[in-house]
Amino acid sequence: MLSQASRKLIMKNGLMSVLLVLVAVSYSFGRLGKTDSDKKKTTFPQILSRGWGDELTWTQTYEEALFRARSSNKPVMVIHHLEDCPHSQALKQAFASNRKIQKMADEDFILLNLVFETTDKHLSPDGQYVPRIIFVDPSLTIRADITGRYANRLYAYEPADINLLISNMEKTKKLLKTEL
Amino acid sequence: MLSQASRKLIMKNGLMSVLLVLVAVSYSFGRLGKTDSDKKKTTFPQILSRGWGDELTWTQTYEEALFRARSSNKPVMVIHHLEDCPHSQALKQAFASNRKIQKMADEDFILLNLVFETTDKHLSPDGQYVPRIIFVDPSLTIRADITGRYANRLYAYEPADINLLISNMEKTKKLLKTEL
Repeated sequence: MLSQASRKLIMKNGLMSVLLVLVAVSYSFGRLGKTDSDKKKTTFPQILSRGWGDELTWTQTYEEALFRARSSNKPVMVIHHLEDCPHSQALKQAFASNRKIQKMADEDFILLNLVFETTDKHLSPDGQYVPRIIFVDPSLTIRADITGRYANRLYAYEPADINLLISNMEKTKKLLKTEL
Repeated sequence: MLSQASRKLIMKNGLMSVLLVLVAVSYSFGRLGKTDSDKKKTTFPQILSRGWGDELTWTQTYEEALFRARSSNKPVMVIHHLEDCPHSQALKQAFASNRKIQKMADEDFILLNLVFETTDKHLSPDGQYVPRIIFVDPSLTIRADITGRYANRLYAYEPADINLLISNMEKTKKLLKTEL
């Protein structure tokens, strides 16, 4: 049986997931997609990349990503997104079609894309919204200092910000080397 | 930055994952596969089903599975396994080729297969080993009472136990209805 604490955590997490959907919808400028994924027709087979780079290696869970970060000494790139959010879709297209990003992601990062929030609140330093990209270094420190250009959503990126994302990926790698 | 507590949890979890691999290897009767998945050639695209039923809907994370269990009022079936474990592979083959199981799984369960342990210790009531199948009902109670036939590994199933697994799936559904 789940302990009372676990139960509370999960209840809270369930609520967070609902909130995430709400925030995502509001971020979509009112363009309401199908928000209930249960009702959405699933495409088969379901793939881990979800279109963010079908030839890259994606981890399934945050636990797996952290384990691989430590064992390979590579930083984790966590992409929170939603299939129904046009901003997420636009960023995904820019991300998947950019050769430099795909190459760096392939060679230097442990990759994780999530459509559900984890229970680690450190992955949402300024709230739960999508798209949201957070880096975690191999010592398991959340790189809250690596941000995009929006003061109200520090970890959001638009397709036009793709070069900033590239330089943030480089920054994540560089600081890592300096620390060694 | 991660709190000291989170860090400890993750360090512990990392250790658990290592332990899981060790237990799996010992369970393989010494037939040592490639245990370091980092070195293993990844097949693309990586799919969520991992061969347990390519036409079924699989959740990605435990958080997602619990959320969908509550919203759909269906129990979760969590399958812990490893690609390098022959016992997992044998059970997978029996599971994927059994029409009755595939139909019940499709219609009545929220499905999750994991190759990494979660941080919820309630998912390993008698230890971390593979293959291991645990049911969680929609009220988020771990069904530790639904067991297989091995006293030293209560949640393990062999291919020959497939009918017991079917009856356990039916039991999970039935008790659920009685409780409503």
